[in-house]
Amino acid sequence: MIRGERKSYSLREISERFGGEIIGDPDVRICRVATLENAGPGAIAFLANERYRQQLNSTRAAAVIVGESMRDATGLPRVVCRDPYTYFARVSGLLNPPRQAQPGRHATAVIDASAVVAEDAEVGPLAVIGRNARIGARCLVGAGCVIGHDVTLGEEVCVNANVTIYDGCQIGSRVILHSGVVIGADGFGIAMADGRWLKVPQIGRVVIGNDVEIGANTTIDRGAIDDTVIEDGVKLDNQIQIAHNVRIGAHTAIAACTGVAGSVRIGRYCRIGGNSGIAGHLNIADHVEISAHTLITKSIDRPGTYTGVYPFDANREWRRNAAQLRHLDDLADRVRTLEQRLTQPRRSKS
Amino acid sequence: MIRGERKSYSLREISERFGGEIIGDPDVRICRVATLENAGPGAIAFLANERYRQQLNSTRAAAVIVGESMRDATGLPRVVCRDPYTYFARVSGLLNPPRQAQPGRHATAVIDASAVVAEDAEVGPLAVIGRNARIGARCLVGAGCVIGHDVTLGEEVCVNANVTIYDGCQIGSRVILHSGVVIGADGFGIAMADGRWLKVPQIGRVVIGNDVEIGANTTIDRGAIDDTVIEDGVKLDNQIQIAHNVRIGAHTAIAACTGVAGSVRIGRYCRIGGNSGIAGHLNIADHVEISAHTLITKSIDRPGTYTGVYPFDANREWRRNAAQLRHLDDLADRVRTLEQRLTQPRRSKS
Amino acid sequence: MIRGERKSYSLREISERFGGEIIGDPDVRICRVATLENAGPGAIAFLANERYRQQLNSTRAAAVIVGESMRDATGLPRVVCRDPYTYFARVSGLLNPPRQAQPGRHATAVIDASAVVAEDAEVGPLAVIGRNARIGARCLVGAGCVIGHDVTLGEEVCVNANVTIYDGCQIGSRVILHSGVVIGADGFGIAMADGRWLKVPQIGRVVIGNDVEIGANTTIDRGAIDDTVIEDGVKLDNQIQIAHNVRIGAHTAIAACTGVAGSVRIGRYCRIGGNSGIAGHLNIADHVEISAHTLITKSIDRPGTYTGVYPFDANREWRRNAAQLRHLDDLADRVRTLEQRLTQPRRSKS
Repeated sequence: MIRGERKSYSLREISERFGGEIIGDPDVRICRVATLENAGPGAIAFLANERYRQQLNSTRAAAVIVGESMRDATGLPRVVCRDPYTYFARVSGLLNPPRQAQPGRHATAVIDASAVVAEDAEVGPLAVIGRNARIGARCLVGAGCVIGHDVTLGEEVCVNANVTIYDGCQIGSRVILHSGVVIGADGFGIAMADGRWLKVPQIGRVVIGNDVEIGANTTIDRGAIDDTVIEDGVKLDNQIQIAHNVRIGAHTAIAACTGVAGSVRIGRYCRIGGNSGIAGHLNIADHVEISAHTLITKSIDRPGTYTGVYPFDANREWRRNAAQLRHLDDLADRVRTLEQRLTQPRRSKS
Repeated sequence: MIRGERKSYSLREISERFGGEIIGDPDVRICRVATLENAGPGAIAFLANERYRQQLNSTRAAAVIVGESMRDATGLPRVVCRDPYTYFARVSGLLNPPRQAQPGRHATAVIDASAVVAEDAEVGPLAVIGRNARIGARCLVGAGCVIGHDVTLGEEVCVNANVTIYDGCQIGSRVILHSGVVIGADGFGIAMADGRWLKVPQIGRVVIGNDVEIGANTTIDRGAIDDTVIEDGVKLDNQIQIAHNVRIGAHTAIAACTGVAGSVRIGRYCRIGGNSGIAGHLNIADHVEISAHTLITKSIDRPGTYTGVYPFDANREWRRNAAQLRHLDDLADRVRTLEQRLTQPRRSKS
Repeated sequence: MIRGERKSYSLREISERFGGEIIGDPDVRICRVATLENAGPGAIAFLANERYRQQLNSTRAAAVIVGESMRDATGLPRVVCRDPYTYFARVSGLLNPPRQAQPGRHATAVIDASAVVAEDAEVGPLAVIGRNARIGARCLVGAGCVIGHDVTLGEEVCVNANVTIYDGCQIGSRVILHSGVVIGADGFGIAMADGRWLKVPQIGRVVIGNDVEIGANTTIDRGAIDDTVIEDGVKLDNQIQIAHNVRIGAHTAIAACTGVAGSVRIGRYCRIGGNSGIAGHLNIADHVEISAHTLITKSIDRPGTYTGVYPFDANREWRRNAAQLRHLDDLADRVRTLEQRLTQPRRSKS
């Protein structure tokens, strides 16, 4: 993939930007990042996980990023720092800057005359921008996107190809939306009346803060009455479903395939594992971690890690144990009975 | 969001349409719905859940909808009725009518010459309509939609932006499809032969009844041989997967992220929780409720609620208990042994 | 659905191609496949599952495909073979050949001048093909697809409508991508620094082998540094999420709604059930089967079937048993205590 032009930096220049201690030749030039395993000339790699330590011996990287405990584990030019993964993230960001918007509107884009599109924004081929939409400076609207009426995008928003944003939704600055994302579809609001479901109009919006990233094919429904809100710095992976009137606190990260039901409030700095779920109307405190494949059915009011996943096993063993699960309450009763019998003095029985 | 023009109605006019008893000024004018918490002048709110009762005291709503038990819980103008949520749904539907199709075909839509599109239908920008497709009266086909060859849409169907309908599928009237929906992709039909998967052609269709709503990014596969069928009034939330040859009975509602495997038959008026699943070839009776995160592995032949979710806990407690789950069958054996020992007369052993 | 022209074949012609023993009139002509239940004149049906045996008596099929054990179960013209389902798949493939590309580029497609599109490829309306993309012979790029810069499609690739492929990804030959698929979106790579998530650039690609099929709305993320790889013959159902740097071995099949976390390596010929998950960085051996709704949390190094699903029950029974699950470790302790008490000679206590 081509992401702008390929520049190079000396190790010294890198450490001047991001800190860390250089050991070895500070003039070695770096033009790309790589894994230890596949690095070649000009590449910098990192070691964050001790189990890949062996690869330090065989890597062909020009330099490596290591933690304090690994400062002498290699003879290669290296940066020693506290958090090699974060350091690596910064170096990679330097070497692989995001694609900038190339100002202009593709001739095939369909942009309503009332829409306000910044001069330096880029609108890709066959994108559609609705009435009174506002597209901020340096935004990039990809091919095939449909941006509804009255939608606002802040500055430097990157909307990848084939994203859909329904009418009236509001997106902050430096937001990234991946392909297939749907923002602002109707929430699942239905009421049973006389044997039929009545649709409850979904008249709220989706409001997304700054620095949010949303993965491919994730869906965020508009509010039923008030808004659905995603606060600053939230990171959502692919194929997540956020129902109407959810509020997700700043800097919370959620892994793929998770579903959050209506009116849930999630705190700040939470980390939520993949394919998990949160039932409707619950509150989740700040700094809560939820394991993958876990359904949360009660509000959580203090930080910690919460789990509810069935431990997997070879099918044969699973079968034996799972069969007992259906009798667990009986089993507990039987143990109670045994305890009572043993507690009663035996001779009084005879 | 703008949904047509903003009209207002007096409380009396509302009760003339939908029933209920007015207490307080019947001439108060209502032009919008709101939550109790965020209501302002001209707004009507509702109380359906006792835990929000407190908000009755502070709301700035012009009027409220309450149940019998709350008839005296406020001094505000109010409608007293049996089911405040359903009543509210009706009022909201009155005040927020769905957007009507604006007859016409956008100049950039690509409509096959053989397609029959009703005069009063609306076809949005960059939509594609295939050979011999039939688009009924007052349908709305959104921007970027791809409607395959030989597809039929009934009347007043609303297809939001970026929906895909494969060739030959049939959609009833008053159906709503949200963005990213894919109707009629090939089912997952493969047969192993000589170490390779052979594709089984998927030649059935998807047939969808009237008054169905399908949420964003939901997928419904075409039948392998016969059709996949979604009956009247079914409501599907976002990111649901319906496999080939499933039949879903009328007025069943399914929450987000659920997967229904091939050839399952689901009855009428079922309610199925989010992220649940139904294994292939099963039958689910009418009026069955399935809890969220539950996998159904056997047919269910009578109404009731069915659940199979691992109760979540703090990770530390979960770990302790889950570890035992792998020895549950042994534990049951040990209890049986204890019971036998206690049942045998003790002295006979000594 | 119309898939090319309707041809017919005699039973003899069919057995000349695919083997099997004909019993009854070999000149009966077959022009379509059908289920036993809904077959009519000219149709061939199959019986692979004994529980549909009854339908042999009432079917109006012109001929049937049966296994050895059923050779005398009907008087209809029939093919007797070892694996009726696979045989049927071949016959259906013969009668329902996939739609061929119709060479040409729709006038509304936006194809970069530097892209190389084979003469006999078909590019549908409103498709977008980026810089330096290469579209091989007889490929079919559907309406509304967005094929990024530097993407390569091999030969006879079928990309259904509204698919998105990000820059630089590489697709083999005879691959089928269903609508809503997103290939190559950024992986979920974030590092926490000073209270904010830092984005880790995702600079790897997605590389897909030959004869792969990918279901509707499935997402496959590009690698963080190295590539995400899907080997030859892999079959993915709908709404699957494949994270960055995953490698899926040849001929593995995965059912819908499954999530595979980052850097997982799955072997060859695995079969993975719907809505299951594999945690990050694990290795799964060849020929492993994973049940639906199961989360794999440790590497699996030998073939077999693995399961971790909570058995469902009527809600009332589930409640009783699930409540005990939270005390399972205590229960095990209590049983241990009972065992100890019974093992100690009783009289020594008194």
